[in-house]
Amino acid sequence: MGLELTFIPALLVILLAAGAGRLLSKRIRQPMILGELILGMVLGSFVDFAEPDPIHDIAEIGILLLLFSIGLSLDFEEFKRLGVSSSITSVGGIILSFTFGYFAAIVFGFSHSVALLIGTCLVATSTATCAAVLMESRMLRTKIGTLIMGATVVDDVIGVVIMSAVIALVLSSTFQVLDILLLVVLVVLFFLIPLTIGVRLFRRASERITFGRESLLMMGIVVLLLFAMITQEMGISALIGAFVAGLMVGQSRYARRLREYVSMIGGGFFIPIFFVTVGMNFDPHAFVSVGWFAAVLVVVAIVGKVAGRGLAAKGCKFDNRESLTVGVAGVPRAEVALVIAQFGFTRNIMTPDAFSAILVMAAVTVIVTPPLLWKILRRVEYEKGRSNNRKF
Amino acid sequence: MGLELTFIPALLVILLAAGAGRLLSKRIRQPMILGELILGMVLGSFVDFAEPDPIHDIAEIGILLLLFSIGLSLDFEEFKRLGVSSSITSVGGIILSFTFGYFAAIVFGFSHSVALLIGTCLVATSTATCAAVLMESRMLRTKIGTLIMGATVVDDVIGVVIMSAVIALVLSSTFQVLDILLLVVLVVLFFLIPLTIGVRLFRRASERITFGRESLLMMGIVVLLLFAMITQEMGISALIGAFVAGLMVGQSRYARRLREYVSMIGGGFFIPIFFVTVGMNFDPHAFVSVGWFAAVLVVVAIVGKVAGRGLAAKGCKFDNRESLTVGVAGVPRAEVALVIAQFGFTRNIMTPDAFSAILVMAAVTVIVTPPLLWKILRRVEYEKGRSNNRKF
Repeated sequence: MGLELTFIPALLVILLAAGAGRLLSKRIRQPMILGELILGMVLGSFVDFAEPDPIHDIAEIGILLLLFSIGLSLDFEEFKRLGVSSSITSVGGIILSFTFGYFAAIVFGFSHSVALLIGTCLVATSTATCAAVLMESRMLRTKIGTLIMGATVVDDVIGVVIMSAVIALVLSSTFQVLDILLLVVLVVLFFLIPLTIGVRLFRRASERITFGRESLLMMGIVVLLLFAMITQEMGISALIGAFVAGLMVGQSRYARRLREYVSMIGGGFFIPIFFVTVGMNFDPHAFVSVGWFAAVLVVVAIVGKVAGRGLAAKGCKFDNRESLTVGVAGVPRAEVALVIAQFGFTRNIMTPDAFSAILVMAAVTVIVTPPLLWKILRRVEYEKGRSNNRKF
Repeated sequence: MGLELTFIPALLVILLAAGAGRLLSKRIRQPMILGELILGMVLGSFVDFAEPDPIHDIAEIGILLLLFSIGLSLDFEEFKRLGVSSSITSVGGIILSFTFGYFAAIVFGFSHSVALLIGTCLVATSTATCAAVLMESRMLRTKIGTLIMGATVVDDVIGVVIMSAVIALVLSSTFQVLDILLLVVLVVLFFLIPLTIGVRLFRRASERITFGRESLLMMGIVVLLLFAMITQEMGISALIGAFVAGLMVGQSRYARRLREYVSMIGGGFFIPIFFVTVGMNFDPHAFVSVGWFAAVLVVVAIVGKVAGRGLAAKGCKFDNRESLTVGVAGVPRAEVALVIAQFGFTRNIMTPDAFSAILVMAAVTVIVTPPLLWKILRRVEYEKGRSNNRKF
């Protein structure tokens, strides 16, 4: 219990940066995440404290709370109704991004293995970036908001499956079909059980058991952590666990109050810390040695999602504006891309060039998307009026 | 940004223990802290995970939030009015505890240096334990609640001054009067400036600047961390910094909303984690080799505060019940005592006997006080009716 709060100064500086970032965003009328990322980059470039572990973990809680709160806020019926469209849209974006990424790498002379990894980097959207903008735009309970979240979740799941397959392939040159199939079965079960039995259980519980304010929050966080742990053990992102936990609890009477509490504890402390540390992690050195390949990769990353998802969404009878929106929402790549880049680089499979190109691609797409998506979402809202914003 | 949330299982188990502890407390009609401590001890005795650092830091944020929220809730005018009485009461308890502790150690054959350290261990009350019970009893805005917090703060400050003096004495055998005087001056300034200029500044700011929910919480935490950092740099407890930050902001219009937000984020997540980890840190091995000295130390710790503070409070014209209450509130010793014990033990000044006796004393006084204080406080409340509970 000795009070060695050595991480307090770091926490203080990060929170100040977050506050300044939010003020900046307000000034330039952009989503908060943009200011937080920018101030994080500024902070990271001239303050040189080794990001202490506890702050890293607090940031992780932040992103879990964000996804939990998205799950709590989403329109579950709409989410199910749009399930097929979301999947098709996601798959469209994935196919084009992966193919473009693979061939771009081949054209630039990278090996087949490296090209596979680079293609995989382009598969999964950064759930955090997309979720933060959606949350703030208050478009979560609209058709387009639901479609975007659906496509993001499918992206993440397929992204992890492809990642496992490609890594297995690169490492052993054999394709462990059974392992991959097992993962798919587990993922399906993980969605099915909570969203059928779990939802009913929580609905009933919420009609009988009333929680006080603090206990309700604690209960919510316990469920969230449990699900995050399960998905992590399964090898898919803990974010998906947090999201499904939110969806499940969100169908009960606890939802309204819990949403309020979680968004406060998240938005007022944990989530801004996450985005500032994300900004801090953008390595400016990656930009120094930037070559043509990085530029091409950025273009490919953007076009792959916008065209792939956009065309697929058009095919699902969404209008032009909606298809463009869900495409732009797919542009940011971070979590999965960085894991793969790290994997490839530390095992000497990937050259420093390829590695740094991926870092640049992640930084640029994450920074560029929020203002773009913000603008498009507000225009959609403006044009459609409130006609689609059911229950809002 | 790679998601390695390895601390999630630990966090989950601790939150479950906290939840179970709170249910237990409710069942046996005791304050929540007792159940959290007990479940922490149970958890600590059969789960053997090395308490990971991030959880330690989250716990520290919890205790800071608790003290901040106490500062926000306190009646500032009453706090100032009772300043002299609080100081006299605190000094009464300190003199008796220190003397008893010193002579008990001498009687048991310990050296002069060790006896000094043991006496010092008995000086400062565990702010956390006392604060948690007060908070939950809703007696903070009463005369007796204010007196207790005042005495606790004075205890902590004097405790740190005595600790610095004794450690200097033990280490170099010379008394650095100037260093100690400097510390005293710094402490006085630290209280004076925020509680005069700071209060006025925040009052004015709160009449002009309105914060949104999340921004207000963030601003509050920034001020809290800033003050915690300053006190820590000064060498006094970060808890005092958090408390003074709360007192200062508490006089502004932000107080009402911020109190609500801080108590939720603290009570629903951070604070229970703190008390469970405190329970986990109680080393059951210390009890195995427990000798007569430990038993005597426990008695001395209790009598020293109850009699010393009680008599001093009587002298300040508090009635019997109130004097007894402020005495009992002084019984728990933890933070300062453990720091000193650790210091003495790691430098081979203190024998394992003395060290383990202090651990036992800390564990027993921290576990015994909440139910006692809870009972007495509720009786005071019952007898006095609401007559003293101004502004409540």
